[in-house]
Amino acid sequence: MDALLSEGNTSVMIEIPTLLLDEYRCRRNISRIAAKIKNSGSVFRPHFKTHVSREIGNWYRDYGVDRITVSSLTMAEYFAPDWDDILVAFPVNIREIERVNTLAAKRRLHLVVESVEVIEFLKKNTTDHINIWIKIDAGYHRTGILWDETETIESVVNALGENLQFEGFLAHSGHSYDADNTSNIMEIHDLSRVRMRTLKSIFPQAKLSLGDTPTCSIAEDFTGIDEWRPGNLVFYDLTQAHIGSCKLDDIAVALACPVVAVHEEQLTIYGGGVHFAKDVLNQPEPYYGLVVEGEGLSWNGALPGVSLRKISQEHGLITGPSEYMKSRKPGDIVKILPVHSCMTADLATHYLTTENKVLSKYSRQLV
Amino acid sequence: MDALLSEGNTSVMIEIPTLLLDEYRCRRNISRIAAKIKNSGSVFRPHFKTHVSREIGNWYRDYGVDRITVSSLTMAEYFAPDWDDILVAFPVNIREIERVNTLAAKRRLHLVVESVEVIEFLKKNTTDHINIWIKIDAGYHRTGILWDETETIESVVNALGENLQFEGFLAHSGHSYDADNTSNIMEIHDLSRVRMRTLKSIFPQAKLSLGDTPTCSIAEDFTGIDEWRPGNLVFYDLTQAHIGSCKLDDIAVALACPVVAVHEEQLTIYGGGVHFAKDVLNQPEPYYGLVVEGEGLSWNGALPGVSLRKISQEHGLITGPSEYMKSRKPGDIVKILPVHSCMTADLATHYLTTENKVLSKYSRQLV
Repeated sequence: MDALLSEGNTSVMIEIPTLLLDEYRCRRNISRIAAKIKNSGSVFRPHFKTHVSREIGNWYRDYGVDRITVSSLTMAEYFAPDWDDILVAFPVNIREIERVNTLAAKRRLHLVVESVEVIEFLKKNTTDHINIWIKIDAGYHRTGILWDETETIESVVNALGENLQFEGFLAHSGHSYDADNTSNIMEIHDLSRVRMRTLKSIFPQAKLSLGDTPTCSIAEDFTGIDEWRPGNLVFYDLTQAHIGSCKLDDIAVALACPVVAVHEEQLTIYGGGVHFAKDVLNQPEPYYGLVVEGEGLSWNGALPGVSLRKISQEHGLITGPSEYMKSRKPGDIVKILPVHSCMTADLATHYLTTENKVLSKYSRQLV
Repeated sequence: MDALLSEGNTSVMIEIPTLLLDEYRCRRNISRIAAKIKNSGSVFRPHFKTHVSREIGNWYRDYGVDRITVSSLTMAEYFAPDWDDILVAFPVNIREIERVNTLAAKRRLHLVVESVEVIEFLKKNTTDHINIWIKIDAGYHRTGILWDETETIESVVNALGENLQFEGFLAHSGHSYDADNTSNIMEIHDLSRVRMRTLKSIFPQAKLSLGDTPTCSIAEDFTGIDEWRPGNLVFYDLTQAHIGSCKLDDIAVALACPVVAVHEEQLTIYGGGVHFAKDVLNQPEPYYGLVVEGEGLSWNGALPGVSLRKISQEHGLITGPSEYMKSRKPGDIVKILPVHSCMTADLATHYLTTENKVLSKYSRQLV
């Protein structure tokens, strides 16, 4: 191999944009949240939509996890060989009813509903016991029954029965991602808990399920809620660092991208929207990632002022101080922290750990 | 199957978000551009990065196409069974050199370079004849040598030789996507042509290659440029309709998404960022897609005021007039035109034609 490639410390096995994963940071993130939730006497049911990897999923067992959350039936099927207790935290898509029945026959399946209409459909069309959570809108306004519409909630609870077992109420405070700072996040956390506990005072048999990464990262007190479902914490990302729910050093994934052209004011990299996704932060100018450096496949701090400023389908443009540009050449690898790790990981076919191990993950396939 | 699913005209075979493709619109789009380019005495070398489907690719042969453009070596490998003459319109990623050599041994491969450094690397490390285009920045400022830096260009031309055959200059006027209207697009088209032809007056042996969908859609005169490489035109999308390079009725793909919850002011659909990507239009408020209706798997006009207004990883939120909300129920299918079809298609595992035929496409795999 030419000197252009053999210089530097980056493994030559990286040919194309590749998602690097630091297992140490990843386990540290899981461990911290798992301990906090356990200390409050609550149960950790982590969301696996961020990593979608059976191998990473199995790391959670080391921290006492025995039940998981996913966001689609496809993910539930993917994780079913390893996990018996699976919650699909997404309003049931009744078009997948046959696959629901297949999975419910084998696993302890939890589904989410929010209307009598869908419950009636499930009663007629399901064949096995299913655990049902009612989706509550505790303030995010994405979907669910508003937390104070007690009559509607009661009619949905009462429609359950037969093989549909009422488990409790489930909400997601996704508006915590739009918080500006940690005190905003705490307000959302406290308000969601109060609203859910009000519901519990009316329906005392109900369990309560909450959980988004920002509130689970900032809060210390999780009492009064039975299950917590954060997911992004496994990797964190620049969005989480920006709102204060993690430090830059907690981010456990970085996209390794080959440099393909060096210009005076920018680097062109192989790495674009089909690798990063297009989530953007605007502080002060829009950017899609921050460049980090470190030996081999690992990384430490971010390079001051060096960021991914534009992306198209396959190209990325990195800007920064001219000394940085001068130090780079075609064939180098640039490591970049992503703005939204869930979306970046979704686009990856696998993870390459900083210890040079390939971890498989779910990839889309023609079904 | 329950009445909830059997009502309406949409095929029950759609279980999860599925990209619908209208072959008639698609062929009409290809045919129109192919005819215009041919009438100017230029050659159409369509970009296949939008559809990335061998089956759709082969439709182009009906319109006289015998050479193609792709944006990665992976795509070149995918299309190599069907096409002999393939241009990778992306600055060579020297980390893929072994795969470059494998492909160059079998196919007429065209690569893009923009520095003497990379040419020297290729001279030392390639084993077969390769056709080389020099990447020119004709105004987009993504990558390439600025069109008026004649000395740099000359040094790159002169560095070629041995198995690296100089073909000509290649530019992409991607700033046409940011145009506000068709006269802006025409200005970009004319200016790019003038700049490229200036280069040709200095290097008369060079061929010229240009092509982005907006200018190819609006312009009628393509003379003076040897090859044109538009890609998005195969499907078009809301961005192209917005800037005036197509009509809404030209858009040849729509994402079919199951409704999972109906609220007074919004529908929740199964269909989010991992299906649409996150490209957004802001006219006047941000939206990620427009809802269309039609019988079975096909569609006609957009429904006034019904749009995809928010997306997260798997969820989409549709807003519109309350009569529309009242007419929908869980299990219905909503068809949505995408903002950026290249990115939406990248996320799909296959296409389902309006005539209920499955077309395969490239999907990411662990390599």
